Amino acid sequence: MQQPIGVIDSGVGGLTVSRELMRQLPKEKLIYLGDTERCPYGPRSKEQVKRYTWQMVHYLLGKNIKLLIVACNTATAYTLSELQSALLIPVIGVIEPGARAAIKNSQNKQIGVIGTEGTINSKAYPNTLKGVDHKIQVDGLACPRFVPMIEDGVFKGEEAEAVVAQTLQPLKNKSNMDTLILGCTHYPIIKDLVQAEMGPHIQVISSGEETAREASLILAYHKSLEQGNIAPVHEFFTTGNIEKFRHIANQWFEEPIQVLEWVSLDPMKSSAK
Amino acid sequence: MQQPIGVIDSGVGGLTVSRELMRQLPKEKLIYLGDTERCPYGPRSKEQVKRYTWQMVHYLLGKNIKLLIVACNTATAYTLSELQSALLIPVIGVIEPGARAAIKNSQNKQIGVIGTEGTINSKAYPNTLKGVDHKIQVDGLACPRFVPMIEDGVFKGEEAEAVVAQTLQPLKNKSNMDTLILGCTHYPIIKDLVQAEMGPHIQVISSGEETAREASLILAYHKSLEQGNIAPVHEFFTTGNIEKFRHIANQWFEEPIQVLEWVSLDPMKSSAK
Repeated sequence: MQQPIGVIDSGVGGLTVSRELMRQLPKEKLIYLGDTERCPYGPRSKEQVKRYTWQMVHYLLGKNIKLLIVACNTATAYTLSELQSALLIPVIGVIEPGARAAIKNSQNKQIGVIGTEGTINSKAYPNTLKGVDHKIQVDGLACPRFVPMIEDGVFKGEEAEAVVAQTLQPLKNKSNMDTLILGCTHYPIIKDLVQAEMGPHIQVISSGEETAREASLILAYHKSLEQGNIAPVHEFFTTGNIEKFRHIANQWFEEPIQVLEWVSLDPMKSSAK
Repeated sequence: MQQPIGVIDSGVGGLTVSRELMRQLPKEKLIYLGDTERCPYGPRSKEQVKRYTWQMVHYLLGKNIKLLIVACNTATAYTLSELQSALLIPVIGVIEPGARAAIKNSQNKQIGVIGTEGTINSKAYPNTLKGVDHKIQVDGLACPRFVPMIEDGVFKGEEAEAVVAQTLQPLKNKSNMDTLILGCTHYPIIKDLVQAEMGPHIQVISSGEETAREASLILAYHKSLEQGNIAPVHEFFTTGNIEKFRHIANQWFEEPIQVLEWVSLDPMKSSAK
């Protein structure tokens, strides 16, 4: 029986990770749960993020997943090690894969990170990078305008270019970095704009691509890669507006999503579960 | 106590993997064993390669290693799954990391592989790549002149360029690949020549870089990354000529190697061990 990979996110950002999982692991079935109703997690307290994340995890554990991907930087920063200790299946976050790819790429150990204010303030990237190599210098920049812009469907054209140029200005002025991590799962949608603004000498790392690649390794390591050749039918769940979710997913994916359902994670509202 | 990473190879090729391990994981101590005396493994029988590889593994297990890297494509092809089943520590080969990086990179699923005749004939790369995604097309090319040339110290200049150009010609003529895997641990030494010959539209994947990055993940996954900040003193062992080994290592590394010893793996010759 096909055992799926579970992907959780505070909203739609994790769809960029899912897109990469589908591309790099086309035999694997995904079950995606986006807590769109309570998105964003960035400004919420650590305790609240942990509670919400555990609710998502419990929901997906009921779907017999073989691997859990926490496709949200905030949830990764607050819950990853706790989840890794508690669950019997492997758990992957989105911070370490991007960090390892940046270490591999950087020749001068000058690495930039852009993300939400929550992610930048958490110091999760500098801590991970310097934990491996204390000589690495990290320049972080919060880009609070990117997520709302992308969720509004603005990810090309003059307006998007202007926002990207203006936002990244401080990073361009002060840094000799050769590598820039997109430390938010929304940002791969505007990767081309970021690359154009930063210039060809800077390698832009998308955590979605790197997370999918590491998922491939962890599944191979546990001998649990899908062996058959049955085209998987992925399942998507959202706690928020179904049509808004479908609209964004279909903009980002090559093919329209087939299975999409609304789900409640609020114990008080879903007595039937 | 510092617990080292063990690296085994049939000769000096695995030094390119070691160089990347030092760069990406500067806190980790390495113990390298190159079976230079019996190199190359490529033309040997599967049974012989397995016996020699197990001799190297047993030697390194006595050094309290926490992770074993089989930095030799032939040994990986013949022994990896056996070692992974038998040993209590994680074991990483050099084939899968390059394959996963190629899958991540390739947009058109047309992937090239160059390696020794043994590696190309083993079909290890096509099997790994197609196991993950059967739509991937693989063009393999054996490059038997590369290893002897590199071991002779010829890895730049007109002669090297001519050999590379002539050898790669068949691959350039027949393929639409966007990604090329250097499927031999010697080849990173001539990566720039290969890149120049193939052109900027082809991403050249070095299995050394990718193996080091996956080693980083596996150590993190097992919570066994080195935590201290003591500069490690790496140890190198060769079954062959010490001065030849030192000469090559010092050409390839940024700093001269400090600890290098001769060792015999032949049970009949080393009664003292």
